[in-house]
Amino acid sequence: KTGKVDLSHGAGGRAMAQLIGEIFAENFANDLLAQGNDQAVFSVPPGRLAMTTDGYVVSPLFFPGGNIGSLAVHGTVNDLAMAGARPLHLSASFILEEGFPLADLARIAESMGAAAREAGVKIVTGDTKVVERGKADGVFISTAGIGVVPDGLDLSGDKARPGDVILVSGTIGDHGVAIMSSRENLQFETQILSDSAALNGLVADMVAACGESLRLLRDPTRGGLAATLNEIARQSNIGVRIEEDALPVKPEVAAACELLGLDPLNVANEGKLIAFVAPEAAEKLLRVMREHPLGKDAAIIGACVDDPHHFVQMRTSFGGGRIVDWLSGEQLPRIC
Amino acid sequence: KTGKVDLSHGAGGRAMAQLIGEIFAENFANDLLAQGNDQAVFSVPPGRLAMTTDGYVVSPLFFPGGNIGSLAVHGTVNDLAMAGARPLHLSASFILEEGFPLADLARIAESMGAAAREAGVKIVTGDTKVVERGKADGVFISTAGIGVVPDGLDLSGDKARPGDVILVSGTIGDHGVAIMSSRENLQFETQILSDSAALNGLVADMVAACGESLRLLRDPTRGGLAATLNEIARQSNIGVRIEEDALPVKPEVAAACELLGLDPLNVANEGKLIAFVAPEAAEKLLRVMREHPLGKDAAIIGACVDDPHHFVQMRTSFGGGRIVDWLSGEQLPRIC
Ligand SMILES: Nc1ncnc2c1ncn2[C@@H]1O[C@H](COP(=O)(O)OP(=O)(O)OP(=O)(O)O)[C@@H](O)[C@H]1O
Ligand SMILES: Nc1ncnc2c1ncn2[C@@H]1O[C@H](COP(=O)(O)OP(=O)(O)OP(=O)(O)O)[C@@H](O)[C@H]1O
Ligand SMILES: [Mg+2]
Ligand SMILES: [Mg+2]
Ligand SMILES: [Mg+2]
Ligand SMILES: [Mg+2]
Ligand SMILES: [Mg+2]
Ligand SMILES: [Mg+2]
Repeated sequence: KTGKVDLSHGAGGRAMAQLIGEIFAENFANDLLAQGNDQAVFSVPPGRLAMTTDGYVVSPLFFPGGNIGSLAVHGTVNDLAMAGARPLHLSASFILEEGFPLADLARIAESMGAAAREAGVKIVTGDTKVVERGKADGVFISTAGIGVVPDGLDLSGDKARPGDVILVSGTIGDHGVAIMSSRENLQFETQILSDSAALNGLVADMVAACGESLRLLRDPTRGGLAATLNEIARQSNIGVRIEEDALPVKPEVAAACELLGLDPLNVANEGKLIAFVAPEAAEKLLRVMREHPLGKDAAIIGACVDDPHHFVQMRTSFGGGRIVDWLSGEQLPRIC
Repeated sequence: KTGKVDLSHGAGGRAMAQLIGEIFAENFANDLLAQGNDQAVFSVPPGRLAMTTDGYVVSPLFFPGGNIGSLAVHGTVNDLAMAGARPLHLSASFILEEGFPLADLARIAESMGAAAREAGVKIVTGDTKVVERGKADGVFISTAGIGVVPDGLDLSGDKARPGDVILVSGTIGDHGVAIMSSRENLQFETQILSDSAALNGLVADMVAACGESLRLLRDPTRGGLAATLNEIARQSNIGVRIEEDALPVKPEVAAACELLGLDPLNVANEGKLIAFVAPEAAEKLLRVMREHPLGKDAAIIGACVDDPHHFVQMRTSFGGGRIVDWLSGEQLPRIC
């Protein structure tokens, strides 16, 4: 009635049922959500399952290239895709702040529904809670997802070995810089858009072409490429060597990073992946990636070495070398 | 270092990895979480899957009989069990407020781990986000869960038909009254405890004994028994008739409801279920339920009738009748 979320929307009564029906069921519409029970029940294709979850607290909620709703679909689809899984179904839990405009909630749900359809997943079950004004920040969303992993595929962060080649699927830093620029109200000649996108299509092509040579995939989200490479070095008990000149960075992103005092290596991405692959398959994988719209700027950025210290080292553009550490601090809060 | 959550704990770097390792991985320990990838990958037994999610925003976080952590396991296990599913795995997404005491977080994670072990489920994947002080309220948790539904079992809210008998597994109102009493700092002679519990064991016994006669199960959480009966009446296109005298209510809960101006019919439960069953199996089901510790106060409370208006009507203790409506308002915010 007031056009805003109020506490009754989380109270389990008529107002909640109406909100769910009009905003969520409408935008997520599918046969499984329509069961309308405490859970969705469905058959799954044979194969192992992958399961993942992420919470989304991005600020601002709407940003160039997406919003918290599309992000909450892409992020969870991508964490499934990183296992080589075909994403099937998502759940969506909403925590709403009293007073949040229903029109904004509808826009978010609409983007979520569209992102899910585009990625080929269904939002099959959900939940809606409301907290008092000042006890949350507009909307938080947690999505979980399940997918099915093709038989014989066994990607894992501990599978990299010395000699493996490392590829990135495109330019780095776009998402984090888009968020920070919109937060700081920075204007550039070229608008910087988040790269938020579902990578399951790209991954399917990669797996089809090079499945048996792939060691692992990971999406460099919070902490950026630097954190992800360090995680994998530790998990696989190897070292990593990358080339600064090989890293794809958009000029406008590089410029914004200068201005904001950020290093693109530490900035979150939401539509990129890194792949570790056996050396003999690297060129083929690169070709396959570049044929996909989300991999057109793919590049080989480095390789794995034997290194008991698990260092990630980069040869810089000037020919020097430096350690690429992961940050210990809070450089970029609420980036996703 | 400070003993409190800070923004670095959500930033994707070392501090986050350490928090996850020391607080979550420690308490949830299992082989699938230990994979340490962006997702967990596992085989599932044959059968259809059930999937569900809930967000938890209960205030206070610690209450007589449980805390947000145990609640987040029980609630999601129960929504799976209401399909007759054997719960398998959970995901857990945490949204933490900067400044929240790490010791409290550890207590919550410990309860969660214990509740999961007790219910026979694994927390296989998680996520940790941190928002600035004042942008959340301590801790919010969203859990999702999957379970496997035995072949041939097809429970659903639209399956009730006139003549079906309605049972409740025990006393109503305990959870909501425990929360409200602790919020209002009320002291009673007998402390009122939340009934928060995992119902999958009870459900397994019910399904084993009366599977083919069961129509549906539902846990009367937010909105209480009143909301749940109204939901089902609508979904199944029937009417419901219940007997006030048949409703199990603890005397201390009844007294507290008086004092707080609540009706136990509208108060949330977190360890109770209602069952709709074919009339010929009702007595047997009651017996089986009473043999289980979580069903010892089970009772037959009413039956379904043909009613195009989907009314839920109650014969009161005084012999009169009244409509049991679901509330449209926000009587009990943040009860779960
Ligand atoms: N934001 C949402 N998007 C899509 N579906 C939703 C959303 N919120 C709730 N639902 C759906 O509405 C129905 C009722 O949800 P509800 O949360 O009331 O069930 P519950 O989890 O059994 O109860 P409670 O949350 O009180 O424990 C379910 O089918 C659920 O999947
Ligand atoms: N609260 C938690 N409890 C249990 N495990 C957790 C928790 N938070 C994170 N994890 C686990 O830690 C690992 C790293 O989680 P992280 O969230 O960094 O991965 P991601 O989702 O791929 O990255 P991002 O959240 O930045 O998208 C995963 O294996 C995840 O399951
Ligand atoms: Mg339920
Ligand atoms: Mg993720
Ligand atoms: Mg729910
Ligand atoms: Mg990831
Ligand atoms: Mg529930
Ligand atoms: Mg995560």
